Order: sequence, then structure tokens, then C-alpha cells
Amino acid sequence: MPLRFANPAPEAYHAPLIIRHLLDGVLTKAGDQQIVYRDQAAFTYREFVDRVGRLASLLETLGTEQGMTVAVMDWDSHRYLEAYFAVPMMGAVLQTVNVRLPQPQIAYTLQHAEAGILLVHRDFFPIVEALLPALPTIKAVIAIMDGIHDPLPAWARGEYEALSAEAPADYPFVDFDENAVATTFYTTGTTGNPKGVYFTHRQLVLHTLAVAGPYGASTASPSLGVEDVYMPLTPMFHVHAWGVPYIATMLGVKQVYPGRYEPEMICKLRDDHKITYSHCVPTVLEMVLQAAEQTATDLTGWKMTTGGSALAKALCGKARRRGMLSAAGYGMSETCPTILKAARRTSVAFSDEDEMLATFTASGISVPLVEVRIVDELMNPLPHDGRTRGELVLRAPWLTAAYAGDPKASEALWRGGWMHTQDIATIDPLGSVQIRDRLKDVVKTGGEWVDSIQLEELVATAEGIAEASVIAVPDPKWGERPLAIVVPRPGADLTLEIINGPVEHAIASGEITRYAKLDRFRIMDHLPRTSVGKIDKKQLRALFAEQAGSSESGV
Amino acid sequence: MPLRFANPAPEAYHAPLIIRHLLDGVLTKAGDQQIVYRDQAAFTYREFVDRVGRLASLLETLGTEQGMTVAVMDWDSHRYLEAYFAVPMMGAVLQTVNVRLPQPQIAYTLQHAEAGILLVHRDFFPIVEALLPALPTIKAVIAIMDGIHDPLPAWARGEYEALSAEAPADYPFVDFDENAVATTFYTTGTTGNPKGVYFTHRQLVLHTLAVAGPYGASTASPSLGVEDVYMPLTPMFHVHAWGVPYIATMLGVKQVYPGRYEPEMICKLRDDHKITYSHCVPTVLEMVLQAAEQTATDLTGWKMTTGGSALAKALCGKARRRGMLSAAGYGMSETCPTILKAARRTSVAFSDEDEMLATFTASGISVPLVEVRIVDELMNPLPHDGRTRGELVLRAPWLTAAYAGDPKASEALWRGGWMHTQDIATIDPLGSVQIRDRLKDVVKTGGEWVDSIQLEELVATAEGIAEASVIAVPDPKWGERPLAIVVPRPGADLTLEIINGPVEHAIASGEITRYAKLDRFRIMDHLPRTSVGKIDKKQLRALFAEQAGSSESGV
Repeated sequence: MPLRFANPAPEAYHAPLIIRHLLDGVLTKAGDQQIVYRDQAAFTYREFVDRVGRLASLLETLGTEQGMTVAVMDWDSHRYLEAYFAVPMMGAVLQTVNVRLPQPQIAYTLQHAEAGILLVHRDFFPIVEALLPALPTIKAVIAIMDGIHDPLPAWARGEYEALSAEAPADYPFVDFDENAVATTFYTTGTTGNPKGVYFTHRQLVLHTLAVAGPYGASTASPSLGVEDVYMPLTPMFHVHAWGVPYIATMLGVKQVYPGRYEPEMICKLRDDHKITYSHCVPTVLEMVLQAAEQTATDLTGWKMTTGGSALAKALCGKARRRGMLSAAGYGMSETCPTILKAARRTSVAFSDEDEMLATFTASGISVPLVEVRIVDELMNPLPHDGRTRGELVLRAPWLTAAYAGDPKASEALWRGGWMHTQDIATIDPLGSVQIRDRLKDVVKTGGEWVDSIQLEELVATAEGIAEASVIAVPDPKWGERPLAIVVPRPGADLTLEIINGPVEHAIASGEITRYAKLDRFRIMDHLPRTSVGKIDKKQLRALFAEQAGSSESGV
Repeated sequence: MPLRFANPAPEAYHAPLIIRHLLDGVLTKAGDQQIVYRDQAAFTYREFVDRVGRLASLLETLGTEQGMTVAVMDWDSHRYLEAYFAVPMMGAVLQTVNVRLPQPQIAYTLQHAEAGILLVHRDFFPIVEALLPALPTIKAVIAIMDGIHDPLPAWARGEYEALSAEAPADYPFVDFDENAVATTFYTTGTTGNPKGVYFTHRQLVLHTLAVAGPYGASTASPSLGVEDVYMPLTPMFHVHAWGVPYIATMLGVKQVYPGRYEPEMICKLRDDHKITYSHCVPTVLEMVLQAAEQTATDLTGWKMTTGGSALAKALCGKARRRGMLSAAGYGMSETCPTILKAARRTSVAFSDEDEMLATFTASGISVPLVEVRIVDELMNPLPHDGRTRGELVLRAPWLTAAYAGDPKASEALWRGGWMHTQDIATIDPLGSVQIRDRLKDVVKTGGEWVDSIQLEELVATAEGIAEASVIAVPDPKWGERPLAIVVPRPGADLTLEIINGPVEHAIASGEITRYAKLDRFRIMDHLPRTSVGKIDKKQLRALFAEQAGSSESGV
């Protein structure tokens, strides 16, 4: 027999999973709820939906069609949120431009995505002015003056607020195929040009629904409920600000957009609006903690999900001692992004602080509809014993189907029917995943794997060290050896012996292999970082791989 | 330009929204979590997934193919949960048979659904034995002996546990079209034969995701988290036990199945397993409260969602004074079922008990992706002012697309592209929907609408009344008049004056129109109820409409 299918009533409404439907019911329950932009503006959800219609009308006037790319270069704002909805809702593709990339790479991403319309904040006028001659696909640029009444640049078609105000709010949004592409952006890999990922309406709606839920976590774990006040601290150009603006809007939560991240403004907004839910990379969490100390801002009850890189127990503990509910999560540009969230799966109290910190700094537990595996090089699944390491591979309804126009990289991404994260992980019997290393960061020395992340965490606890990173460098005898690159605290006089202090302690207690003992290190003033704030190991490898190969080695 | 579509990598995995994928990641995080059946059996999730595979293998051996209907007649059990997954996961259709229907109607539903395989609990052997000759499509019957070692009936192919144990656990489930029908069951309308509704894999997965989330409610409102222990108290044949078994399984929650609902067993299971989340109709809540009082069972912290009929403030308050977190919800057989949940949308404390009770006894706020409207007869939307009444119509991705084989009723269900609930509701500015009446229950007297639900709630508070219902009866002068049908408490001597006491009080304070004052009533020993426990107004109307027409009338 064939599968049975429905025979719908002639007028039965089939709801496609498109971004427009995330707004279903929102005005009914949250029409008067607020969306705030810095200390400059506040709108009700009713006004927000109006403005989404206006933006779509305006974009249509400027020649936007279904399938066309509309690029945005802005800080985190109500305007960006409006674009998150208006652009995909009209069937066009939203490109969230990483404004921290070097200028030639910004040009590359706009060219590669064939952006047709560009919305640009005044802070990026110089970049756009320089790039425009090389961007022949751009039909129109909308200038965002952000409240400043300077004259517009000659190449701008008009100003965002002024043009919006003139455009009709009743844009006739229609239903269409949920598999249409909704968003695109570029991820900087370890080699070559940035790679474009893209997400369909269906993927974004499913991500929103699955990540909004309790995803298998106790209510004691940080999550976003309707009584929360939300403020993103991950840029909106960075993987949809982790998808949370879509969740917050669907739920009708009060939202606060901080513009450019300025520590004092962030503290003021936290104070003024009693922000209770945010997300950020650990570096920003560190920055918030410092700023709050300087401005005597109370942080009690602020739930903060971190991602992008590992959350150190020390930082998590520091945030929690200040009253923040800090917990890690895991995702990538390729994954929309949420895959894992660190969470407690029981209401039983923690036995001690260390258990609590271990729980909330773990990479996390999978959200619903996500299947995680660790595999060996032949794609054989490895045991979930908390010790065995393998590459983390994924299946979920919201993983990018390919890199745009890069079949070879796309094939490698999906080798064997699973999405390859290139992260080395363990999974424990309760499903807690812990990222241990990057495939490319692994140090294999004398036939043993050394955990570079664990090693750099140990080194970071040594006396006189401000920051530390560990990379693998080629070694004629051992194949590879770990090299520590350290930033000393002012006045500290670092020696190999000092740096190795915590490492030897960990070797003695069996926490790390004896092959991890360092035989070389380098000093820098500061560690190079990528545009999203991660330590740039690619650059470190380029700087040190050659010279380090000639060092003396021996464990 | 056309919409843009992805160009997936050759091996990119596209995840269809099928029930199988609700299990993705569950064994990783909850393999050792428990599924309990009464005081008889307990299985880990790992064993459960094994048993799902065995059931599918067994069904295949018996001739189950894709598209075939597999019918279940059982009390709430681990076996039913296994069928919830195994049957749809193999591409067959699960029919959840309402065992409370009269025998001829059970026969009708099995015939109409063309059930090919039947799983039947020993309590229903007499029914099945009588019906089998009239069920030519049934290929095999599996007997559920439920631990009793009696001989099997001659017509049974074997016993559930014995046959399962022999079947291989590694059934090769595959992906298929998410729009395939997964489940079907029959709803008893006001006229004619029961009507078959059906739900696709996609609909059930989306219902599971959307209802699992905070759906726009504060964390103070009852919801199911992973630290909860779940026990259904709405039968599994009744609209997928409101879909909660799918949610609980996806989250990896501990589940307890109570079998046939016996008050003492329910109290014992609550005690033994510290049940924290259940759902039921108000009548069952009343029964649980009574049983708990008799058995001195502590109810503190038990979250209880009620639906099926309105939750009276008195009952909600009684449950809450016993420590239960009781709150209403709303849905129908046609809606999978969840559409609304009563919830607090802020963490601000209630100003008084009445505000709290009003919040938690409201029909509720829409869950994500649900669009609610109240409309007039021409489908014009009516204002959300908390006063204006109209028919509640719906759009959501999980509404039945039609009644099986009944084009005329299907067309009426979806008239104008919205699903008609036939319920009369108000919506307030904060999105709280309140069902005020059934289209068919409305009393229109002297040109005024009288709220039959409000009126019967008032009557129920009169001295000496155990139960009350109100129906409209024809009246030559007024068009219609309300008729109260009341069940007196033992020894009570009811008069029209006594019954009208609370009504006159409400008229005086302006809560209800003066046209509501009763001029007639009837006494019964008990009110007739439908198979799902609602007061059977169809039967009341049949009993009283004629004779009441001749009564004296006057307000």
C-alpha cells in the first residue's frame, strides 16, 4: 500500500513554515509590548509590525524582488530586527554583513552574494564609499543616519527613517514555498575566502520553535520566557544573533537593542530596563563584568548564554558570584546556530560549586530534533563514555545545506551524510557534550593526543599570565609539539618552569598526559583575534609554526 | 526574479518532520530515564526504543504495510506509547479507538477507518468478539493480557508481550514524506455518526515543538520541563492524550502510565513517583481531589492542565488550596489539540486570589504559530476588547485538513479558509481568549444573547445543587428561553427561587443580562455525559426541548 495522504477541504489553510508566521498571534498577545533602541527610541510591537510593512514597501519601490539579496551593515538595532522580518517575508534574501571583516573581505561577500540593495549605518559610510565602484549589482543604498542630521552622501537613495515614514505599512505579504532561502552570511574559515552559508524559512522557523522550548533542560537552566527582557550581546550579523531575536519576537518578549556595544551603555540599558536575558561570547561577558564593576551595576538575575568559544570555569564562576546565571551553549555559522545548551537535567541540587560550574561550562545537551554523534575517521560512531574523543557530527533540520558556490567544501562539510563540525568532542552517558579540541588544533605528539584546549586552560592559571593559547608546531622527533603563546601580566617575568607549574600538577594527578609538558613558549603583547572575538589560531600558526620547528624538544 | 532555493551538497541530510525524529537525541540524553506502567512494569528509554522496534517488526509480520490502519483499544499504558511511535514510524496510521463509545459506534469507526490490525486489551474482549464478524478488513488481532495468564481467545493471533519478545528490535525505520497521515480518531458531533479526523507526521511534530515551548507564558505558569514526572489523566485515545506523550518523550521526561483510571492507583502512583505534571478534564480533577482527601495524598506542586470543558473558579481554587498548580487550556479533536493555554504573561504577582483564578481559568493564550480570531457570521474580524463575542476561528499548522470521507462537513469546518470551532469567545487586549458559549448552546431570548455557560456556573453555586446545566428551549414569546437542568444534593429541596438566587445577584451587579433570570428548571438524578466526560447537551436538548416549550414563560 502507498502512504496515506490527507484529502483536504477545498478551503483548508495549509500553513507553510515561513518567517511571516512567527508573527501569528503576536499582536493578539503582545501588541503593546516594547522594542527599545538604546536610549533613543521605543516602539510597540504594533508599531514594529507596521514598520516591517513599511520597510518591505520601501524595498519594493527600490526594485527589490523575490530572490534578490538585501544586505545590511548596521549595529544591533530595531532597524536590523525589522530587516530580519521584512526582507525574508517578501521572499528576498537577507545578507547580514560582518562589519568587522577587513574591507576587501566585505567587498568579496557583497559581490559573492550579488547584493542588490544595501542598508548601511553612517559608521560604515567610508567603507561603502570605497567599495561601491566594485559593487555593480547594488541598485540602491539606504543610509542609516541614526538620529544625526548630517547631509546624506551623494550615493545614498535616502535615509532609512525618512523613506520608511513615507512608505505604506500595508505591504501585501503572501505565503510561498517554505524551502526558499531567507538569510545568508559568510563565515571565515581557516583557509581561503569567507564561505557563504544560507538558511531557508523552514530552517529558521524550526530552529526558533526547537530552541524556544525547554530542550530537555530543567527550568533551573537559563532560558527565555515571556516575562524576560531580552538584549542581544552577540552582533546581529553573527548567525542571526544566535536566532534569539526570532524567538523573542515570536514569544512577544520585551526587547532592547544596544546599538554598537559600549560598556557604559550596556550597563545603563541593563539598569533602565532590568534586562534578564542576553547572550554573548566570553570576551564580552568579561567586558560586561568589568564595566558593571566600574559603574556599580547590579547584575543579579541576568541570564547569560555564552558561545563562540569555551566558557572557562573561572569566568563562569566570577559571573555567578556577581549574581548572573551564566551558562554555555554551542553552535556554528553552519548550524543556524543552536545545537547544544549547557543545562541541568534534574531539579536535584548541585553537590558543590565545582559540579555546578562543570555543568554550566560544558558545551551542552542537544536541543530537540538534533542528533549528535562522535565518530572516527571512517565515520564509525564512538561510545558516549565521557572519555572517548571523536569528531562531532550532526543532523538537524536547520543545518546549512552547502557553502554557496563551493561544491568541494560543501561535499566535505556533508561527507557521509552528517555535517562535520571539525570539533573533537566527548559525550557523557547523560548526553553532555564537551568540545575538547578543533580538528585543526589537535596536537599529536609521540603518538599521543594532547588536548590543546585543556592545556591552554591550565597554562592560563599559571602565576603572571593574562592570556594563553596553545598550537601544534611541527617537530622532527615527536611529529608535533605543543607551543604555548602567552601574554604576561604587567611586570610578570615568565619562565618555562612557571608556565609548566599547573601542567605538571595536572600530569601528576592524571588529568593530562605527560606528553603535554611544555618545552617551548613564546610571549606576545596580546593575542590576535578573529572578527568574532575568537583567538586567531590561524594567525598564530602562521607566525610561529616555522620558527618553532627549530626549537629544542624533549619531554 | 524567482525565489532563491538552496543547492544542497550531494550528501546533505534533509530531515523530514516525521515522528521518528522526535526520538533524535533522546537516547543520548535520557537512555536510562524511566517509563513506568502502574505498579507492574518499568522500562528505560533504551528498552522503550527497543520495544518500538519490536512492535514494528511484529506488525510487519502480521501484514502491516504503509498506509494501513492499526487500531488500538487499551487503557493508558507503555504499550499505547509504543504504538504512538511504532505505527506511524513505519508509515502506517494509528487509530486510537474511543473505548467509551457505544458498541455500534466503535464498530462504525473501525469499519470507516478500514482498520487492518487491532491491538486490544482483555477488558474489551467481549466487545471485539461481538464486532469481529462485522469487521472484514481486520487481518489480525493482538491480545493484551496485561499480566493475567488466562488462555487467549481463539480469534487472537497471539499475546502482545509474547509476540513482541520474539520480534527483532532492529526494525529498519526509514524517512518518508512528512505529509503522510500518522494518526486518526473519531469525534462525536452533535448529529449523525462520529466524524474521523486525521493528523500528519508534520502536524504532530510541529504541535510537539510549539506546545513544548513557553508559548508566550511566564515560567510561573504550569509547563512541562525535563525535571518533571509526567502522568496522563486524559485517555490516550482522546486526541493523543493532548499530545503530551510526544512532548514528554522528545524531552526525555520520566513518564508514568496509570492504566485504567482508578482513584486509589492514581494517588499511589502520585505518591510513589512524585508525579509533577498531568492533564485531565475537570471531572477527573474533582475525582483526584476527592480520592486524595480519602487517601491523605499530598498534592503539593502537582501541575495540572485541564481542558475539555471550562475550569470553574471554585474547582481551580480548591485544587490550588491543596497545593496543585491548576490551570486551563483549550483545544478540540480537530486541533491536535492544543491551541490555547491559560497563563500569566508577566512575573508581577497577582493582586488578589480572584485575579489569579481569572487568569488560570481563562481558556488561555495562543501557543506559537496559532492565529486566533473572533468573527461575525460574514467572517469579519471582531475587536479584542474582552466583551465582543464572535465565533472563534483558527489557523495553525496542526489543524485537521478535513473529516475523513465527509466533504460537506469538511467544507463547513473550513468555510472562508479558517477552521470553525463553533465556540463563541471573547479576546481581551492581552490575548486571553475566553470561551463564552457553544454556537449550538447559545440562548437568544427577546433579542438578547444569554451566556449559557455563565448561567450554569451561577446556578451551580446555588444552595443544594450538585450539578447544573443550561440549554436553550424554544419559546413562543421570547424565541428561546434558558432551561436549567439541575442535580440536587441529597435531601435538598430545590425551588426556582433558590436556583435564581445567584442569578439575581449577578443581574443586580450587572454581570449578566436580566433576560437570564430563570423561569423554568428540571431535576435529574445525574446529568448525561458524553464518552469524554462532557455534559451531553445533545441528549438534554432531546429530552427537554419539546416539553419545555409548553412551560409558562416570563422574565
